[in-house]
Amino acid sequence: MTRADLWRHIQAKRSFLCVGLDPDVTKIPVHLRREPDPIFAFNRQIIDATLPYAVAYKPNLAFYESLGPAGWESLQKTLEYLPPEVFTIADAKRGDIGNTSALYARAFFETLAFDSVTVAPYMGRDSVQPFLGYPGKWVVLLALTSNQGSADFQLLATPGGPLFEQVLATAQTWAGPEQLMFVVGATHPATFARVRELAPEHFLLVPGYGAQGGDLAAVARHGLTAQGGLLVNSSRGILFAGDGPGFAAAAGQAAAAAAAEMAPLLDQFAG
Amino acid sequence: MTRADLWRHIQAKRSFLCVGLDPDVTKIPVHLRREPDPIFAFNRQIIDATLPYAVAYKPNLAFYESLGPAGWESLQKTLEYLPPEVFTIADAKRGDIGNTSALYARAFFETLAFDSVTVAPYMGRDSVQPFLGYPGKWVVLLALTSNQGSADFQLLATPGGPLFEQVLATAQTWAGPEQLMFVVGATHPATFARVRELAPEHFLLVPGYGAQGGDLAAVARHGLTAQGGLLVNSSRGILFAGDGPGFAAAAGQAAAAAAAEMAPLLDQFAG
Repeated sequence: MTRADLWRHIQAKRSFLCVGLDPDVTKIPVHLRREPDPIFAFNRQIIDATLPYAVAYKPNLAFYESLGPAGWESLQKTLEYLPPEVFTIADAKRGDIGNTSALYARAFFETLAFDSVTVAPYMGRDSVQPFLGYPGKWVVLLALTSNQGSADFQLLATPGGPLFEQVLATAQTWAGPEQLMFVVGATHPATFARVRELAPEHFLLVPGYGAQGGDLAAVARHGLTAQGGLLVNSSRGILFAGDGPGFAAAAGQAAAAAAAEMAPLLDQFAG
Repeated sequence: MTRADLWRHIQAKRSFLCVGLDPDVTKIPVHLRREPDPIFAFNRQIIDATLPYAVAYKPNLAFYESLGPAGWESLQKTLEYLPPEVFTIADAKRGDIGNTSALYARAFFETLAFDSVTVAPYMGRDSVQPFLGYPGKWVVLLALTSNQGSADFQLLATPGGPLFEQVLATAQTWAGPEQLMFVVGATHPATFARVRELAPEHFLLVPGYGAQGGDLAAVARHGLTAQGGLLVNSSRGILFAGDGPGFAAAAGQAAAAAAAEMAPLLDQFAG
């Protein structure tokens, strides 16, 4: 998918919402556990309910891998169920030596058919490069994550500023804004202005909205660009907005509420 | 597995060899491709041939994930086939926010029954902590990797020295040498003396020997400790030492040669 396609989709839905498809088996409604594939049954209803409001979907691989081969099959079915216009993100946080990253790229871009994969920067250029060899596919590189531990290393002073700023700078020598996005957590809203100085055009994938407490307006003010430039993710806040047979309707309402918050921010700060 | 158990096993076999079980489907012998599970058939023969010389086995998850659910099943069978005295490492390089890392820990320590998993440090303490909640299970944290891109961020100057030195220091506030190992590539032999100053007792997992060209004697001189302290990995150099029906015998010879190089180094520098 091109950056222009993604921006058109954002404009059409007036939303930059990404739904994190993290189907925690201990939290999915009891009535779904009788289904042959409870995880896919859950995801399918979440997708149906949220599709009018979401432009991207981001399954975190951990939720599937922890279930063994059956989880992998649920993931495949989920991915096949998603319509082609939505942007799909394998939240895998991979990164390995070149010949190994090439296999992860094959796993996420060929065996599965994701549009993008999240990659950890620690191992440097040759660990990221193999993911950039697929036209129309994207790397979403961790820069400043939403968790407390992000302060342990990502904020360490280096000659090029805090480590995450050096990651933003170095990675732009590897790929442009048509193939590279950055993860910047909503839990660091004060940083978005600086991130936009360093990466004025790249899309940012923003976790930490909703359950993790990030501030959407603060993120949008500095994060949105003339071509959109933001995907803001919510997982638990949408998936588990309700329980029981009404879970999907509740998820749809939570996604609608998020999109309703996003539409005026798009009018004000993007386009 | 305890550190003492691992050291006893190293002494018994007079080897600190780890075999990287990275069964590249494009390289495994043609005659195995008729087997119902070629990957497991390959691994089983590699294990049989190398077991007298190896104390640890390290499947890299990419090689299995790139094959979808079938790959995951090959991995499960491989892990069940390995005898309990060998140390098993899920080379997964994972790391995510706390609730998600907890699921990866479940995947590798419960769904599968690995002794350890490799973890990337970029996301900090709360991304690593969930892997430390399993008594007898280990985190193998990336510090200084064997690839060229290791220079991009791991060697950046920070107030605590090059970033990888800060990782060594900070991680030791999270766990001791009974639960934490570090990855330090054999391609940086000059660094081992400094690593041992900073982490005198922790086991180091050393990739980059063999196909990647690292120098074993240089690594052993500074890396070995009174309790062993080293696992040196070879993947391609052993797995693809030969081809055709004699592939396993060739792998066994390559492993025997590595162990023969290791025994006198143990006598000289360890114990």
